[in-house]
Amino acid sequence: MSKVTCDLSISSDGYSAGHNQTEERPFGDDGGDGWGNKLHAWIFETAEENRAEVDQMTAASVFVMGRNMFGPVRGEWDREWKGWWGDDPPFHAPVFVLTHYPRDPLPMNGGTTFHFVTDGIESALRQACEAAGDGDVSILGGATTINQYLAAGLIDELRLHIVPLTLGGGTRLFDGVPPLNLEQVKSRAASSVTHVTYRCHDTLRRTR
Amino acid sequence: MSKVTCDLSISSDGYSAGHNQTEERPFGDDGGDGWGNKLHAWIFETAEENRAEVDQMTAASVFVMGRNMFGPVRGEWDREWKGWWGDDPPFHAPVFVLTHYPRDPLPMNGGTTFHFVTDGIESALRQACEAAGDGDVSILGGATTINQYLAAGLIDELRLHIVPLTLGGGTRLFDGVPPLNLEQVKSRAASSVTHVTYRCHDTLRRTR
Repeated sequence: MSKVTCDLSISSDGYSAGHNQTEERPFGDDGGDGWGNKLHAWIFETAEENRAEVDQMTAASVFVMGRNMFGPVRGEWDREWKGWWGDDPPFHAPVFVLTHYPRDPLPMNGGTTFHFVTDGIESALRQACEAAGDGDVSILGGATTINQYLAAGLIDELRLHIVPLTLGGGTRLFDGVPPLNLEQVKSRAASSVTHVTYRCHDTLRRTR
Repeated sequence: MSKVTCDLSISSDGYSAGHNQTEERPFGDDGGDGWGNKLHAWIFETAEENRAEVDQMTAASVFVMGRNMFGPVRGEWDREWKGWWGDDPPFHAPVFVLTHYPRDPLPMNGGTTFHFVTDGIESALRQACEAAGDGDVSILGGATTINQYLAAGLIDELRLHIVPLTLGGGTRLFDGVPPLNLEQVKSRAASSVTHVTYRCHDTLRRTR
């Protein structure tokens, strides 16, 4: 069975993004000092040191993301938003986007196709698993989407990348998620980030 | 100058204790499965593997704690509560307890004396630093007390011990604390806990 994984960069106080996302500021309020970028600097500025974790993030066969991660458009698809990533998104695979508003599949360059799913997280995951075959499915985010999957017991492996700063507010991982029995299966300190991989036990997936 | 440190065991979602502390349950609600103990199992059950961190926790010359960490008594000191730790507490040093209710110093066996401070966190820290001389001062907890010291910019080094479980509620580290600029100075993975040490920059102490 394919594994359902999740990689998330979070601050030391557990936030993955601030409030008030806009097109100019995908990670929302940043208190004026660009922490939205700081949260992901380990991927771009110290990629070599973090090669294993970066490779792991992109190794899944299929991806799932929430609508806010896909873009700042709310409500009906009244404009031709194609994601934050330009014509050749870095996924090179099917990406299932959770939304309440139907939209035709959106093929991009490089093998990425965005599929819009309107009937809930379980349906999106089921479609993603079918598309993945034996490959893994990665729940990309944001934290609100990940929290829904965690609460539903649908994530097998949670890989956190804990960045040394606090935000004091925003979208918080684990917010509203009932207590979880985790197993720390891997943990590694890089110079400016700590990587921790948890296996989620008692997930519903295992009993299906 | 002596350093102000803080060691705290937290869950993966940042909680150090649950709601509804009682004399029988110092860590409050545990959802019936004793996670209050689970949060600290790394100290007792795998002490050898975590020797460096355990030694570091107790290396300070003087300690500060909040009243709820000292005990479940609220309001006036209407009973002879002497802490959770028996006649010979593990501190072997002065311990300054934050409270709104005056009480005479309480000498215990083994060198521990509890001093009760009623005029605020800055006063308690000042008294602790005086008593420590060149030694370090450790803010023991709970998280509510630590958050006050963090918000006031009075902690130099924050040492987190992140335990693989989530609680979903309780007393949360960083709750209500404005954004902090942290530096990850050390991080180490043990088998069932990840230790991360942060230096807090721009603390008020440095500018005094």
